[in-house]
Amino acid sequence: MNNLLVAQSGGPTAVINATLAGVIQGVRASNKVDIVYGAKNGIEGVLKDNLIKLDDFVKDIVALDTLTYTPSSALGTCRYKLKDWREDEEPYRRISEAFYKYEISYFIYIGGNDSMDTVNKLSDYCKNKHHHFNIIGAPKTIDNDLNLTDHSPGFGSAAKYIATTMAELESDTSSYDMPAVTIVEIMGRDAGWLTASSALARINGGAGPDLIYLCEKEFDYAGFLCNVREKLEQKPNVLIAVSEGIKDGKGNYVSDQLSSGAIDNFGHKYIAGAARTLEQLVRRKIGCKVRSVELNLMQRASAHIASETDVTEALLLGQKALSCALNGETGRMSAIKRLSNHPYRIEFISVPVEEVANKEKKVPPSWISADGHDVTKDMIDYLRPLIQGETKIQYENGIPRQMKLF
Amino acid sequence: MNNLLVAQSGGPTAVINATLAGVIQGVRASNKVDIVYGAKNGIEGVLKDNLIKLDDFVKDIVALDTLTYTPSSALGTCRYKLKDWREDEEPYRRISEAFYKYEISYFIYIGGNDSMDTVNKLSDYCKNKHHHFNIIGAPKTIDNDLNLTDHSPGFGSAAKYIATTMAELESDTSSYDMPAVTIVEIMGRDAGWLTASSALARINGGAGPDLIYLCEKEFDYAGFLCNVREKLEQKPNVLIAVSEGIKDGKGNYVSDQLSSGAIDNFGHKYIAGAARTLEQLVRRKIGCKVRSVELNLMQRASAHIASETDVTEALLLGQKALSCALNGETGRMSAIKRLSNHPYRIEFISVPVEEVANKEKKVPPSWISADGHDVTKDMIDYLRPLIQGETKIQYENGIPRQMKLF
Repeated sequence: MNNLLVAQSGGPTAVINATLAGVIQGVRASNKVDIVYGAKNGIEGVLKDNLIKLDDFVKDIVALDTLTYTPSSALGTCRYKLKDWREDEEPYRRISEAFYKYEISYFIYIGGNDSMDTVNKLSDYCKNKHHHFNIIGAPKTIDNDLNLTDHSPGFGSAAKYIATTMAELESDTSSYDMPAVTIVEIMGRDAGWLTASSALARINGGAGPDLIYLCEKEFDYAGFLCNVREKLEQKPNVLIAVSEGIKDGKGNYVSDQLSSGAIDNFGHKYIAGAARTLEQLVRRKIGCKVRSVELNLMQRASAHIASETDVTEALLLGQKALSCALNGETGRMSAIKRLSNHPYRIEFISVPVEEVANKEKKVPPSWISADGHDVTKDMIDYLRPLIQGETKIQYENGIPRQMKLF
Repeated sequence: MNNLLVAQSGGPTAVINATLAGVIQGVRASNKVDIVYGAKNGIEGVLKDNLIKLDDFVKDIVALDTLTYTPSSALGTCRYKLKDWREDEEPYRRISEAFYKYEISYFIYIGGNDSMDTVNKLSDYCKNKHHHFNIIGAPKTIDNDLNLTDHSPGFGSAAKYIATTMAELESDTSSYDMPAVTIVEIMGRDAGWLTASSALARINGGAGPDLIYLCEKEFDYAGFLCNVREKLEQKPNVLIAVSEGIKDGKGNYVSDQLSSGAIDNFGHKYIAGAARTLEQLVRRKIGCKVRSVELNLMQRASAHIASETDVTEALLLGQKALSCALNGETGRMSAIKRLSNHPYRIEFISVPVEEVANKEKKVPPSWISADGHDVTKDMIDYLRPLIQGETKIQYENGIPRQMKLF
């Protein structure tokens, strides 16, 4: 038997199941795999012997289509991190035993930085122990911080959600004729790609956000207040996008400024985000109406506004990962290389996973505008193709159809 | 000249511009109106002589279509409240002078409770002073709390957004295999219709929210913790929907519980919502991972996931308001009467605005489940038709097209 195991790991995205669907589709076209297994909750499912035969669940093209457009990880996810096998060989032994038991030749792990660390360590172990499994990663992360790939599946859909939502919020907030500040917090602890995509709200000439602060740039409170006051002199409604991970000159998270001081009436520390902290600051220092909005889990879960470009690429990256595995590669990740912006052209490649694991791709300083509170044309040219196209998501009774595998 | 003036007032919705488009469409079909004016920022635009000729902006069917699907108030909005004319006649005089100046025969005011108060007072004044203007209201509110209409435009789209988002959040949160509570705060200070619509996330058999707390029902902290613990014994991830306006047995807002105690490190009172308060409570009393999510402005602005039923009804309520005005009615509001649920059938009627103004339609107690933390089948039967259908919203460069009138 020549079986394949696939699993998902890390934070959900709108298109991680499209990559899973791509693997299944590829298997059916290849005729080189006998059984496709899915592990529940990533590598934890392998350790706990919690596997299902995916063919039982994804029987026809309709089911595959529903899976493609279902957000989050249909197989479940985990945040399990393997120690180096030289320190603790036990989990590695159990994983390879499971592979032998289920006659797994190919293992595809769909995930982000941490998941690629698992792919790296596991393939390194197998090489050393002469286990001939082909272990391949397929990228996913809304944060777009994966190394060696032009961009990551999940990012384009989150960017489309953010661009659309910022345009809608701009319409909402600008309908009032009194001074007000709205601060929108966008995911990204260390990389500002998602926050940058808020600028796409202006793509059709709309006003979009007035100020954009990425976490790559040192955040200056006084400068921020100055920028806000300046904008308020020009127009009544100021819309601001900030990364959750903005930090001051000393490297302290802005979000910690409020949290460290705020104590609720239970006597407990209050956990607040960057936007909440800035909301309080604007209320105290400027005194106008101010509101903070967190795009929260919606920015990674909103499959109903997924980018068709993103869905298609996610699917093809699953197929590419499969073809790498079938070609005998191991310890590699399927990835995207951009050939041109206009027209948008890419090719699918594979890259060594050890150069992806535990690294972060940040926004280049030259793509942040000189004044520090916007992005440049290069950034827009990079982002624009990734949000193009609307999906043919199926609705049933007024809401999108979804699929559960466990 | 026989001119018409239209304006928008109160909180934005995803379909308030569809009602505006309905008025314009109706005018073009009627041949009974010479010029259609729009006032900027509601009645304030009339007082400030800030009017535009809408035909200059909405020239063709494509523009009308873009306007239909643009969220928020394209004409701008206000929260201006008129005093009784017997107390302060000045603004009434200025409004009627503006009507004479622009030869306005018909005034259509699109809005909620407060806007219907304006329609009521203004038509009362005009009757008393023998000004023969036809003043008609067209309903809008995401809160669905307007009296004498089966439901209000804007609500169905917000409900569709909430149902879709709750299903997506359920997919997201359930992908992890460790105990976690997610509390989603939904708009509604005094009426729980929007929170109830979170139950539609289960319409295709999905798990949806595990617990739903409406503001019509007294909120019991101990009972809440007991419900959460019970659910956590059954499954690792518990998803909860709460109205922003839930109150305890003494009538105090849950949101005030944290706000009153929390002081930030600037020494200022911290303003928090109901979900944040409950998040802190769960963290302290249960101790598992807990997160709060506010659907915030997105639930009223998300035109990209508007309900086609809602958009169509909003448009037709604009036309109905126009036909009321043309038929010589005044001091009335266009409204919806439901004839049946299966099949969904309605008719458009007009109702006396004095019975709509300043009143609130709450969720009937019999539509809240006996255990107090869910809704009944009657509620689902009522809600289901309102979220049906997806719009043909036009995308340009990856985001929905929008229109600005000012």
